[in-house]
Amino acid sequence: MSAQILDGRATANSIRERIREESEELARSKTPPGLAVVLVGDDPASATYVRSKERACRKVGIQGFQHRLPADTGESEVLQLVRKLNRDPAVHGILVQLPLPGHIDADVVTHAIDPDKDVDGLHPVNLGRLVADQPGFVPCTPLGIVTLLQEYGISTAGQHVVVVGRSLLVGKTLANLMLTRGSRGNATVTVCHSRTPDLTKHTRQADILVAAIGAVGMIDGEMVRDGAVVIDVGINRVDDPEAKRGYRLVGDVEFDSVNPKAKAITPVPGGVGPMTVAMLLQNTICAARQASTRW
Amino acid sequence: MSAQILDGRATANSIRERIREESEELARSKTPPGLAVVLVGDDPASATYVRSKERACRKVGIQGFQHRLPADTGESEVLQLVRKLNRDPAVHGILVQLPLPGHIDADVVTHAIDPDKDVDGLHPVNLGRLVADQPGFVPCTPLGIVTLLQEYGISTAGQHVVVVGRSLLVGKTLANLMLTRGSRGNATVTVCHSRTPDLTKHTRQADILVAAIGAVGMIDGEMVRDGAVVIDVGINRVDDPEAKRGYRLVGDVEFDSVNPKAKAITPVPGGVGPMTVAMLLQNTICAARQASTRW
Repeated sequence: MSAQILDGRATANSIRERIREESEELARSKTPPGLAVVLVGDDPASATYVRSKERACRKVGIQGFQHRLPADTGESEVLQLVRKLNRDPAVHGILVQLPLPGHIDADVVTHAIDPDKDVDGLHPVNLGRLVADQPGFVPCTPLGIVTLLQEYGISTAGQHVVVVGRSLLVGKTLANLMLTRGSRGNATVTVCHSRTPDLTKHTRQADILVAAIGAVGMIDGEMVRDGAVVIDVGINRVDDPEAKRGYRLVGDVEFDSVNPKAKAITPVPGGVGPMTVAMLLQNTICAARQASTRW
Repeated sequence: MSAQILDGRATANSIRERIREESEELARSKTPPGLAVVLVGDDPASATYVRSKERACRKVGIQGFQHRLPADTGESEVLQLVRKLNRDPAVHGILVQLPLPGHIDADVVTHAIDPDKDVDGLHPVNLGRLVADQPGFVPCTPLGIVTLLQEYGISTAGQHVVVVGRSLLVGKTLANLMLTRGSRGNATVTVCHSRTPDLTKHTRQADILVAAIGAVGMIDGEMVRDGAVVIDVGINRVDDPEAKRGYRLVGDVEFDSVNPKAKAITPVPGGVGPMTVAMLLQNTICAARQASTRW
């Protein structure tokens, strides 16, 4: 027995195809969707993420506005840029790549983004709307996870979802999303983390288990009950001299021991990662569509 | 064996004593704290709540600004009042009593309150700050619960907290608060609700069980494990011809069957209720203190 593979890459591709059509439609009605990407400094992982987001934009016809700032840029200059982008009618989404250099307060910068252009969904107003079950931008990774489950017909209603990890980007926001009413919520949700004693007691109860810890292979077969759906959010680099880039990507789930027990599982790479990028594009399209009806 | 009673009334009284001193101090430094209370319509339960909040303000030296509007007041008039209160330097906290009449959108009104005067903690910005673990106003009932636990030396760190109910006012916000880092958080949190199958399976695992459902005596002794701490948020009226007012208040917990099993329990009335009002006063004092440093 082995689990059904929840193919995030294929799902993301079909979503991107739909987005490409909507993007063309918006362009025809004089609102070509635009995403501004701000990168401060030269962290190589951040640069890689930013490049892949910009490439994804290009492929679906979203205009990318690139803003590369040197590592020693002051906070006030970053804020000035954000305010300029807030006012720019060609820019519908603003993404400031995190982490920012230590001398810049990421919260201050995030809060400066117009909530209606906050396609990352990290502005407090959007987080608050999520908790309050009101319309707003939902962070891309949680949104990607529920979308992937929906595409495979896996309902969360009445299911016990156990999320391991309480980060803002994934754990806590996913928990709130899955507690909302409606088709992507209605789950019973448990959030575990580094301070949880006897983690296995909790993970073994999950109908849907979400690993978002950032620790290589931390969830093994012993920790998963038979027939569970397992979502692996981890993207960890491990050295691999045989790989072209000298490393390969592995998740938080030990695939080989979990695969025989799970009913369905997301691979790493090719699971949650591509869905996250697709949701960024989708949020940008939503923002452009809202702007087009506003003018 | 019977449980320790977590006396919310006594704890709230000692907190109110402290607030009274802070309030006098603020008045001496020319910032007498002020809370505006807006009541639209004549729902008797709302009127009772509002009166008790105003009485509580008076007792601790917080100036109460009462705004009673008729039930047919338009949304724009309510918004106009809120904006006026936002600008009024004598008003540090604004409370719009919910529910509002059906023709007024409660979200629109809540969003219009200046987040720095949102002592109910229900503005999306404050809800978002709570999720993001940033400073902001926390809704009064969840804040009252963690404060009561702290006052009795009951730590949430590493404890499994099971919350029954996913309302914004209690269930979801309490879950987010207990997931934060720091002394009032660090819990493993499960949120159950009306769509949870086999509720007892979850409640019996709780180190700390929070009932916030609004259903008389729904949690009985069978649903509680030995030695659990039980927090009863329910305030339900049941007819009682022998009571002076013709009814009495009971919680969501069946006290008589849970009391012998629990390690500690909050009574109804006299448990979470008084703590909620005390936290409203405390949030108002915080708002006034922030304003006094700002001018």
